[in-house]
Amino acid sequence: MKKVKVLKSVLVSNKERAAENRRFFDDMNALVVNIIASPGAGKTSFIRRIVGTLPDPINVLVIEGDIRGQIDSELLAQQSIDVIQINTETACHLDAFMIAQVLPQIKKQYDVVFVENVGNLVCPAEFEIGEDFKLAILSTAEGDDKPYKYPLLFHLAAVVVINKVDLMPHVDFDIQEATAGIMQENPHALLFPVSAKTGEGFKEITEFILGEVHAKKKKT
Amino acid sequence: MKKVKVLKSVLVSNKERAAENRRFFDDMNALVVNIIASPGAGKTSFIRRIVGTLPDPINVLVIEGDIRGQIDSELLAQQSIDVIQINTETACHLDAFMIAQVLPQIKKQYDVVFVENVGNLVCPAEFEIGEDFKLAILSTAEGDDKPYKYPLLFHLAAVVVINKVDLMPHVDFDIQEATAGIMQENPHALLFPVSAKTGEGFKEITEFILGEVHAKKKKT
Repeated sequence: MKKVKVLKSVLVSNKERAAENRRFFDDMNALVVNIIASPGAGKTSFIRRIVGTLPDPINVLVIEGDIRGQIDSELLAQQSIDVIQINTETACHLDAFMIAQVLPQIKKQYDVVFVENVGNLVCPAEFEIGEDFKLAILSTAEGDDKPYKYPLLFHLAAVVVINKVDLMPHVDFDIQEATAGIMQENPHALLFPVSAKTGEGFKEITEFILGEVHAKKKKT
Repeated sequence: MKKVKVLKSVLVSNKERAAENRRFFDDMNALVVNIIASPGAGKTSFIRRIVGTLPDPINVLVIEGDIRGQIDSELLAQQSIDVIQINTETACHLDAFMIAQVLPQIKKQYDVVFVENVGNLVCPAEFEIGEDFKLAILSTAEGDDKPYKYPLLFHLAAVVVINKVDLMPHVDFDIQEATAGIMQENPHALLFPVSAKTGEGFKEITEFILGEVHAKKKKT
C-alpha cells in the first residue's frame, strides 16, 4: 500500500499569528498600540498630534489601515512620520495576517508603533494584531451612548480617548454618561479627554504613552 | 444498493432572500429605505425628525438594527413611532435573513419602512435587505474625506444626507470636497444637506421621501 504523506498544516489562527507579531515587536522593544474608532472620530488627527508632542528621540512608526487609498498616510508623511499603508480592499478591519505581511518592510528600530485600524467600532475589536493594548477613540460628536451600543471595543480597550472636547458646547454629549458606559464594560479603562484640534489634554496622554514605552523597554 | 435521498437545499442566498423581502414590502405598497452611516452620524435623529415632518396619514415603521440594547427604539417609541428591534449580537450589519425573521411581526399596512442599519460604513453596504434604495448619512463632524475612504456605500447609495450642517462653523468640513467624492462614486446620487438637530433642510428631504412613497404606490 502506498503511503500518503500528511503535511503538517501551516495554517495558524489569527490569535497565533498575533502572538508571532507580538514577539517581533517585543524583540525590537516597540510598544504597539491598536487604535480603533468610528470613521471620522479623529484617529489620524490624534496620531499627528501625539507624534508632534512626543519628545524627539522617540521613534514612531504608523501602520495605516484603510479600505482604499492613502489619504491619511500622505497626511502623516507630510509630518515626516514613517508610515506603512495597508489597503484592505473590502475587509472592515485589520487582522494579524495583514500585519504579518508588512513586518518585513520594517527595517529600523522603533519605540512606538501606532496601528490605525479601519474606521469601524465593531469588527476591529475582534481581531488581535499583536498589540500591547487597544486604544479606543470616541468623539463627542458621536454621542455619549456609543459604549452602550458597541460594547465589545469598550470592553477590550485599556485606554479610551474622548476626542473633540472642543465641540462639547455644540453637541449633546454628557461625559459622565459616556464614562459610566465605558466603566460598565471595563472598570479599569483609563480615560483621556482631548482635542486633537486644539491640543487640549495631550500633555496627559503623551506622558502616559511615554510611561508605557519605558515600561515596555524594562520588561522586554 | 440503498438509495440516498437528496433533499433539495433550502438555503438561499442573501440576494434571493432580499428579493423575497422586497416582494413582501411591495405587496403592502411600502417604500423601504435602508439607512446606513457611521456610529453617531445621526441615523436615529434623522428618522425622528423626518417622521415628525411627514404628514400624519403616512404610516411609518422603523426596523432598528443594533448590536445590543434598544436605546434608539426607546427614543423612537417615545415619539409613538412603531418600531421593531433587531439585535445582531456580534454581526456588524443587517442582512436579508434578519429582516425576513421579523416580517411576521408586521401586522398592519405601512407607507414607509425606515431600516436603521448597524452603525458602520463598510459591511452594511454589502448586504441587500429588500430595500427600494440605500440612504447614506454622512455627518460634517466625520470629515469630507469619507466618500473617498469608504467608497462602496457611496457607490451604492441613491441618496446621501449630509447631516450636522449646524456644526459646519466648528469643524473642518468642505462640502464641495465631500460632494466631489460622492459624485466620483455615483454621479446620480441625490444630496440633501440637513441638520437633524435644528431641522434645517428637512422640508426638501421630506418632500423627496413623500414623492417616492407616491411613486411606489403607483408602481406596485
